Amino acid sequence: MGKRISLLGATGSIGLQTLDIIREHPNKFQLVAFSVGKNIEETRKILNEFHVEVVSVQKEEDALLLQQEYPKIEVVFGDAGLIQVAAHTNADVLVNAVLGSVGLRPTLEAIKKGITIAIANKETLVTAGHLVMQAAQQYNVPILPVDSEHSALFQAMNGEKKSEVSKLIITASGGSFRDRTREELKSVTVKEALNHPNWSMGSKITIDSATMMNKGLEVIEAHVLFDISYDDIEVLLHRESIIHSMIEFKDTSVIAQLGTPDMRVPIQYALSYPDRLERSNAHRLNLAEIGKLHFQEMDYKRYHALKLAIDAGRAGGTMTTVLNAANEAAVSLFLKEKITFLEIDELIERAMDEHSNVSSPDLDTILFVDSQTRKSVQNMVK
Amino acid sequence: MGKRISLLGATGSIGLQTLDIIREHPNKFQLVAFSVGKNIEETRKILNEFHVEVVSVQKEEDALLLQQEYPKIEVVFGDAGLIQVAAHTNADVLVNAVLGSVGLRPTLEAIKKGITIAIANKETLVTAGHLVMQAAQQYNVPILPVDSEHSALFQAMNGEKKSEVSKLIITASGGSFRDRTREELKSVTVKEALNHPNWSMGSKITIDSATMMNKGLEVIEAHVLFDISYDDIEVLLHRESIIHSMIEFKDTSVIAQLGTPDMRVPIQYALSYPDRLERSNAHRLNLAEIGKLHFQEMDYKRYHALKLAIDAGRAGGTMTTVLNAANEAAVSLFLKEKITFLEIDELIERAMDEHSNVSSPDLDTILFVDSQTRKSVQNMVK
Repeated sequence: MGKRISLLGATGSIGLQTLDIIREHPNKFQLVAFSVGKNIEETRKILNEFHVEVVSVQKEEDALLLQQEYPKIEVVFGDAGLIQVAAHTNADVLVNAVLGSVGLRPTLEAIKKGITIAIANKETLVTAGHLVMQAAQQYNVPILPVDSEHSALFQAMNGEKKSEVSKLIITASGGSFRDRTREELKSVTVKEALNHPNWSMGSKITIDSATMMNKGLEVIEAHVLFDISYDDIEVLLHRESIIHSMIEFKDTSVIAQLGTPDMRVPIQYALSYPDRLERSNAHRLNLAEIGKLHFQEMDYKRYHALKLAIDAGRAGGTMTTVLNAANEAAVSLFLKEKITFLEIDELIERAMDEHSNVSSPDLDTILFVDSQTRKSVQNMVK
Repeated sequence: MGKRISLLGATGSIGLQTLDIIREHPNKFQLVAFSVGKNIEETRKILNEFHVEVVSVQKEEDALLLQQEYPKIEVVFGDAGLIQVAAHTNADVLVNAVLGSVGLRPTLEAIKKGITIAIANKETLVTAGHLVMQAAQQYNVPILPVDSEHSALFQAMNGEKKSEVSKLIITASGGSFRDRTREELKSVTVKEALNHPNWSMGSKITIDSATMMNKGLEVIEAHVLFDISYDDIEVLLHRESIIHSMIEFKDTSVIAQLGTPDMRVPIQYALSYPDRLERSNAHRLNLAEIGKLHFQEMDYKRYHALKLAIDAGRAGGTMTTVLNAANEAAVSLFLKEKITFLEIDELIERAMDEHSNVSSPDLDTILFVDSQTRKSVQNMVK
C-alpha cells in the first residue's frame, strides 16, 4: 500500500510539489488527509484526484459547502481541523507545509500519535524547537527536514556520527538583491523583491530570501534539528544554489549534497527516507555545463536580518518567537506596501529590543508572545 | 593499545604520510611491521622511532646489515619479506602503499589472514581486482580506499545503498599539462612533467597524472571497489581538486566529499574507519577564500591514456594487467628520457593491440602477462 501521507498546506508551493511526488509514486505513497486555506477550486481538484479520508479548510462555510459535495469524505475546518488532519490516526507521515506558526500545535499533536514529521514549516522549529524536539524524543518520532538546506545536511549526516561534526555550512544564494549594496536596498519595490533568481517559491519566502531572514530562520532550524552550537554554524554565499549545504567533520573532510534547484528532491527524500526513489523525468546535475560555482563570505552588515536571527537564536527562549512573528508581520506590511524593504529589519529589531525574554517557554507562552508581537509590530506603523 | 598497522612502502609519499598519522595518534595506532626498498638511512630512522616487530627491505645484504644493528627486530627481505610484513599475524590493518604490481601477492596473503586492507596501491586492484574482491568477500575483509578520489566515493556511500547509486563522478585536476593541446604535448620534458599543480606525489604517479592514466587506473579501481558498470562512471575535469569525487543517486541527489588537497585526510580515514579523528593542525577548507570551483567535460581525445584505460577496463581479463604493466614500463622509459611524452600512450596502445586477452585469469597468469608486457614494451624501443 505504501506510506500514508497527511499534508498540511496542500495548495502552497511545497504542498503542490508534495502532491506531484505522491502522484509520481502511486505504489509508494497515498494521500489520506490534507488541509488548505481558502482555495476551494484547487481543493476540489485534489479531492477528485486522490482518495482522501479527511480534508480541512480554513472557514466553516467552505467546509459545509464541500461536505455537501463530498458526503463520503470528512470535511473539517479551522485550527481544530488542522489538528484533525495532522494527527489523522491512519497517517504514517505528516508533511507540514503550512506557512507561519499555525503549524505548531498540529505538529505536536501528530508527534503524540507517533506520526513521522516531514517538516517544511520552519516557524514550528524556530518558535518551539525545544518543545518539538523534546516531544519527538519522548515519542520516538523522526523529524525529517524538507527544506533543501536541511535535507542536504541530513543527507550529509547519513552514516556519520554527531560527535564527529565540526561545523555546519549552510549555503545562501544571496536572494534577489545579492548584487545590491544595503544603500541600494532603500528603494526596492514589492515587485522587484518577489523575483527570485534560482527558486520558485511563495511570496513570503521570497521576501525572506531577499532580506536573508530565510537563511536566519534556517540557521535556527539547523541548530534545533542537529543540536549544533551557533558557533559551529556558518553561512556561505553561493549564488548558484547547487551545493545545498555541507558538513565539515573533525578530520577536515567536508560532505556536501548537490543538485539542481528542485524542491521535489528533498520533499521526495523526506517521504521515501531511508530509501531513495527514482526521479525519472527530473533534470540531473551537469557541473560541466554549469562550469563554475562561486563562493563568498557572508556580510552580516549587508544582511542585517541574518544577524538578528542569529542573535535571537543565541538568546533562545521566546526571542526566536519574537523574531519570527515580527518578521511575518513586517513582511506582510511590506507586501501591502505599508513599509519599505529596509524597514522589515528595523521593525524586527525594535520588537526584539522591546521584548523581555522568557526562557524555556511552554506552548501557551509561545503562542501568547507570538500574537502580542504581531500586534505590536502592526502598531509600530500606525 | 589502538589498531596495529603494517605498512608496505614506508618511505614512499603515502608511506611517510601514513607514519605522520600514526605519529599524530599514538593512542589510536601502532606500527608493528613495515617494508622499504633501498632507503636504509630512512629505515633506521623509522626503526629508531617506532617499536616494530618486523621490517622488510629489498636486498639481502641490507637485511643482514640491519639485523646486526637491530638484533631484537625480525629483519626480512625480498618478495617473501613483503609477504611477511603484509600478513604479519599481529596486524589489524595493512596499508599497501608500494608502487606497482609487486603489492598484489602480499595483499592476497593479508586478506587470507583476515587483515583489513587500506589500499593505496592501485595496481593491485587494476590488475587483479576480481581476485582481491573475491578473497575479501570470502574472508570477510574490508577493502578501504586510501586514494583521495576513492575515499571520497567511499565517504559519499556512508549510510547509502549500492542499489540506489546512479553514477560515480570522479574528478580530475587535469594534471600538469591541462592547459596544453595534445599537439603541444609532443615536446614536453621529464622536468616539466614532474611539476604537478595541486598534489605533491612520487614521480611515477605525477607522470600518470599528466597523461591522465592515473585517472584511468582510478576508473578501473572504482569499478572494482564499488562494483559499478563503466557506463555509470564519469570523469569530470575540476582543476582545483577540492571536490574529490561525487556520487549521483537515482533520486538525482549528488553527495560529494570535499577538502584541501591533503592525502593525510584519506589515509587517516582508512586507518580510523568507521570513526573520524581530529586533525588539529590541518588546513581546513575555506571555500570563500577559494572563491570559484571550475568544472569541464573530459576530452578523451586530448587524454588518450584515459580512453585506453576505460577500453582495457571494459575488455577485462588480462587486458588491465597489460594496460598497467605497459604504462609502468613506458613511464619508466620516459623518466629515463628514452621515449617522448606522447609515446607513453603509443606504447601502451601497441601492447594492448598485440595482446590476446585471457578472461578470469588466475594470479600466475596475471603475473606472467605482467612480466611479458614489461619485456615487450622494453623491446619496442630498442
